[in-house]
Amino acid sequence: MFEHALLGELLGDEAVAKAFSGQVFLGHFSRFEIVLTEALAAHGLIDSDSAEAIIAGCRSFTPDIQKIRTETVTDGLAVPAYVRQLKAHIGEPHQKDVHLGTTSQDLIDTALALSLHGLNEIFRHDINRLRDSLQDLNHAHGPNRLMGRTRMQAALPMTVGDRISAWQAPLERHQSRLETIGPAVCVLQLGGAVGTNHVFGDKAEAIAGEMAASLELGKPSKQWHTGRDNLVDYANWLSMVTGTLGKVGQDVCLMAQQGIDEITLESGGRSSAMPHKQNPIAAETLVTLARFNAVQISAMHHALVHEQERSGSAWALEWMILPKMCEATACALKTANRLAGQISGMGQVVSQ
Amino acid sequence: MFEHALLGELLGDEAVAKAFSGQVFLGHFSRFEIVLTEALAAHGLIDSDSAEAIIAGCRSFTPDIQKIRTETVTDGLAVPAYVRQLKAHIGEPHQKDVHLGTTSQDLIDTALALSLHGLNEIFRHDINRLRDSLQDLNHAHGPNRLMGRTRMQAALPMTVGDRISAWQAPLERHQSRLETIGPAVCVLQLGGAVGTNHVFGDKAEAIAGEMAASLELGKPSKQWHTGRDNLVDYANWLSMVTGTLGKVGQDVCLMAQQGIDEITLESGGRSSAMPHKQNPIAAETLVTLARFNAVQISAMHHALVHEQERSGSAWALEWMILPKMCEATACALKTANRLAGQISGMGQVVSQ
Amino acid sequence: MFEHALLGELLGDEAVAKAFSGQVFLGHFSRFEIVLTEALAAHGLIDSDSAEAIIAGCRSFTPDIQKIRTETVTDGLAVPAYVRQLKAHIGEPHQKDVHLGTTSQDLIDTALALSLHGLNEIFRHDINRLRDSLQDLNHAHGPNRLMGRTRMQAALPMTVGDRISAWQAPLERHQSRLETIGPAVCVLQLGGAVGTNHVFGDKAEAIAGEMAASLELGKPSKQWHTGRDNLVDYANWLSMVTGTLGKVGQDVCLMAQQGIDEITLESGGRSSAMPHKQNPIAAETLVTLARFNAVQISAMHHALVHEQERSGSAWALEWMILPKMCEATACALKTANRLAGQISGMGQVVSQ
Amino acid sequence: MFEHALLGELLGDEAVAKAFSGQVFLGHFSRFEIVLTEALAAHGLIDSDSAEAIIAGCRSFTPDIQKIRTETVTDGLAVPAYVRQLKAHIGEPHQKDVHLGTTSQDLIDTALALSLHGLNEIFRHDINRLRDSLQDLNHAHGPNRLMGRTRMQAALPMTVGDRISAWQAPLERHQSRLETIGPAVCVLQLGGAVGTNHVFGDKAEAIAGEMAASLELGKPSKQWHTGRDNLVDYANWLSMVTGTLGKVGQDVCLMAQQGIDEITLESGGRSSAMPHKQNPIAAETLVTLARFNAVQISAMHHALVHEQERSGSAWALEWMILPKMCEATACALKTANRLAGQISGMGQVVSQ
Repeated sequence: MFEHALLGELLGDEAVAKAFSGQVFLGHFSRFEIVLTEALAAHGLIDSDSAEAIIAGCRSFTPDIQKIRTETVTDGLAVPAYVRQLKAHIGEPHQKDVHLGTTSQDLIDTALALSLHGLNEIFRHDINRLRDSLQDLNHAHGPNRLMGRTRMQAALPMTVGDRISAWQAPLERHQSRLETIGPAVCVLQLGGAVGTNHVFGDKAEAIAGEMAASLELGKPSKQWHTGRDNLVDYANWLSMVTGTLGKVGQDVCLMAQQGIDEITLESGGRSSAMPHKQNPIAAETLVTLARFNAVQISAMHHALVHEQERSGSAWALEWMILPKMCEATACALKTANRLAGQISGMGQVVSQ
Repeated sequence: MFEHALLGELLGDEAVAKAFSGQVFLGHFSRFEIVLTEALAAHGLIDSDSAEAIIAGCRSFTPDIQKIRTETVTDGLAVPAYVRQLKAHIGEPHQKDVHLGTTSQDLIDTALALSLHGLNEIFRHDINRLRDSLQDLNHAHGPNRLMGRTRMQAALPMTVGDRISAWQAPLERHQSRLETIGPAVCVLQLGGAVGTNHVFGDKAEAIAGEMAASLELGKPSKQWHTGRDNLVDYANWLSMVTGTLGKVGQDVCLMAQQGIDEITLESGGRSSAMPHKQNPIAAETLVTLARFNAVQISAMHHALVHEQERSGSAWALEWMILPKMCEATACALKTANRLAGQISGMGQVVSQ
Repeated sequence: MFEHALLGELLGDEAVAKAFSGQVFLGHFSRFEIVLTEALAAHGLIDSDSAEAIIAGCRSFTPDIQKIRTETVTDGLAVPAYVRQLKAHIGEPHQKDVHLGTTSQDLIDTALALSLHGLNEIFRHDINRLRDSLQDLNHAHGPNRLMGRTRMQAALPMTVGDRISAWQAPLERHQSRLETIGPAVCVLQLGGAVGTNHVFGDKAEAIAGEMAASLELGKPSKQWHTGRDNLVDYANWLSMVTGTLGKVGQDVCLMAQQGIDEITLESGGRSSAMPHKQNPIAAETLVTLARFNAVQISAMHHALVHEQERSGSAWALEWMILPKMCEATACALKTANRLAGQISGMGQVVSQ
Repeated sequence: MFEHALLGELLGDEAVAKAFSGQVFLGHFSRFEIVLTEALAAHGLIDSDSAEAIIAGCRSFTPDIQKIRTETVTDGLAVPAYVRQLKAHIGEPHQKDVHLGTTSQDLIDTALALSLHGLNEIFRHDINRLRDSLQDLNHAHGPNRLMGRTRMQAALPMTVGDRISAWQAPLERHQSRLETIGPAVCVLQLGGAVGTNHVFGDKAEAIAGEMAASLELGKPSKQWHTGRDNLVDYANWLSMVTGTLGKVGQDVCLMAQQGIDEITLESGGRSSAMPHKQNPIAAETLVTLARFNAVQISAMHHALVHEQERSGSAWALEWMILPKMCEATACALKTANRLAGQISGMGQVVSQ
């Protein structure tokens, strides 16, 4: 969404858009080829002259993105065109040693892992910040009286702190989950044409280990060309985060109704027709993003039906979905933090 | 997707991306304000001096898009910032007559209708072209023998024409459906703050009629601020089209397997690891796009739960979904047409 | 859901559960075999002795349902076991003429068409009744004052009639759509093993016409073994209906809040913990059913990717989804009618 | 699905159907009331006479299920009617101490936890069994040659063991995940009317601890009335399992094609039209169930938007979805185990 001229700030996120951009992915491809080359040379699969030439070539190479974009229509992915250009750039006699033993999926999935690695830091930070903000709100307004409501009906009185506590609890669990789900997707992909690393023979394990270490990624016990469950688990986490924030947003929208008046928001949205209105835009946006991800998660599960050694159709479905889910999640965390900052009152002060 | 530097041509569509761009929507806003002003003047709700000044102002006005983008975060939509800028541009004494009686949703939904109007022409044309291509394939290969397969098992022999006929039949129905579903979404939105057109009084009907005529849109019997079923019906049509093409893509992938060898494709995709391979990229992409839309359609149905007189959250969900569905559909039609052009043989020639 | 001992009345529907029951489907199979036999005899494909014996056999036959159920695990559908039993019941020499030229899908899809035919009557009736109830509510409370609310904030005053009118408008469109979408799925299926009706030769058209007429179903221009778009269109209609009612339910929940107090409901739900509460159960249920169908519709679109001449997996997905969507729709209409009957006040009476 | 007379064995699962049946849930309600009563008495909130009478009453009580079913329409859930009957059964003077301090959600969510506890044992067992079967297949056929296929095209030769290994890897991860995700949903619910356990005061913690221990459930750090993320995580696990099995099923369908002939299946499904066919029913069913759950998971994420202290609509959505997801998963595991038993050959034996 970030690219949209009008809606990009409201519903998108710049850091995520950048992390999945073509430019950044091409940079990741280059890093992959470099650490591959280093590992191949270390294990004697290519000679050191070739390695030096390839690494230097990767560093001096500027891909023709427009050409890659066009040829991606034919090839179904960007790597073949990228590798053709890189080989041509490196030229004879070393181009035969470029990309040796690997396949497009190795580059693209590893690039994904590298991008997610950076995003996890952002997610971790933004959840932390939100938890702090909620704690501040609890300090400021926690003891205030709030009518507990079930089935949208007034039930029994409780405190603002009771509700904030219900907002906090899942965030704490999401943070804890991220500690295992996050690293599980920041893992090298290395399998070669059909996932058997047949070109590397008995050096496959060692090569993967060195590449993973160089890229600061995890080393998988095995390639995961068709085993996409960690990605699905991650997407599920994304949508659990937005769902949790959607509940907060829905609660705030309900609290902000005239007649209910349980929350005071500063700087709400303006209306083109009614200048007097203060709309709870941030809260509404949280509901929108929750429902957006709740829909998208379905596609990630369909993509588990990933036939044979590589499914062009299931894999491309992930490309269309996962970046948008990351963006919705980052935007929701950003929006929730903004919303927390807009709250100047909650519940009713209990006089002593 | 079209904005993606690497994948934009494979999975996106330029015409759709443009139709939903900020620039084009701002142009639609301007057209709306102009025809509104004309209708208001014709019915004496504003005087002719004001009308002339506003229309001239709309024509000379260049909005500050970056400012609108930023203020959209606060307002939840682009119209308030747009209108503020337009009013400032027009200045005293006429700015009070700008945007009179209308609300943001009137502009945005009407802009959507204008964009869909253009896209329907493209859809109509691309389905026509595909049906022609399939007919050509039928002429070329229809009598050839093809093993009919059920439950992925060889069943009984039939002809290539039998299968092409099964591909054609739903396309014909989709074309026919578009004749009613298409115009149903190319309809003016005009309701004012809470949908009652209360500012226009008994002239509301006439004003809506004139505005619709000027914009070459349909005139609704009533505003449709919360009645989003025609949009859902349209989204359903989009996803039926991609589902139909997904079936074709899946069939082609199966026909192209070595050992089955029921189709010959020219210019398939290349592999970075295996130069000998010819991958059925276009066919796989059709499956991807079918599953993409099959997931997205769910969100449009959730957006039917559009509370009270305007739901900020349900409406924004449409913004995130419908353009992508249009883009996937346009891309699928384009891809199917490309695929049809790649087919140089089907089935087995029956010797006489 | 209807089978659930506790929740069956709340979330299920007896008529729909029955229409998709094994017993009713077996009855439809029998009708299919009878009209097939009549048509085959009329066209000389079987002799009249055979026809008489088969028709008599169909009428006297009581299938062993438990055996069919067990053998369905192996066969993937109930028809092979059913036909084996029917043939054994009819015995020599006529059993070779039973089920001649047809395939399991012909029976199952035709049975579906027959069941949907009955359900459409119920849907038509229940929407009519609801529109009448809403009109009655409009007569009783329409002129009352209601605060128009946008983005969950008070906007401008309007009338109860304005809101009821927004509830009515999509129902009217759904009724009109049912007139074309309903008959489109009440259509005979007849294609034989791979959809070519090869056993019937040049009599296929006539046989299909006579069978359709006997069953009071539409005659398709062609079999629709893999062309499932009419079913998807129908499912889309179901979910548009529940989405429309979900909007009504959401509005009523919001109107019923203490502090808002815009609606008076008789006989709300009781709480096990708080005897004083009156919960808007019917209204909440409408929201639940709307979201249920909004999720299910996705599966019907996935099932459009129906490979080759019959997809066991895509087709069985329909069986798991469409009956539940029909049930949710029937339950929602029933619930909306109940809700309408519980409303004893809306908005604020305007004194003169 | 299990209740369906014809399809129940193919697409349903008896153990899951039973675990979510009204009868079993009523049994769980009774266990809840008994352990609640014991804990209340132990902490002096009710006297021992009352406790004895209530416990005896719970044991001798046979609820009128039909009456509960009917009253559930009004109340929105079964507990109020159940508690009314139970209180009447126990009578004066002790009925005031029945259900003390708790709410319907405490019973229903705890009953869910008890049912899931039993199902987790089944899932654990069935995955184990499947992993063993795959290992057996690997022993029998692992060294055989198999063409590795990417994008549905022959790529490079590999072994049957390579593919089986790709089937195994996610199953191992699912098993490991179940060790944390499983217990996380087998947790007592105890919050009272608005989640504050206000009736229990400072004894709430101790009461919850004792009840959880008696029921052999986990004790939550806090009630989870609105914090449904553990359930969503669990549902995600269910759908990851079916997705993994769907990939196996899709692979088997592709391997079983004539012309590919990479797998030999015993006892495939029969056709009503073509007695010679052997359909890979079990494999197709795995694909169906994968797509079924991939759709349903979306609803669980929507149900995270669970407003205020209890959402009647979001919660009831879970009731409609989670049992079906459990059933699809159990059925898929059962089906995969059946499929494994049908495989008598894979790949091509390599002569030495």
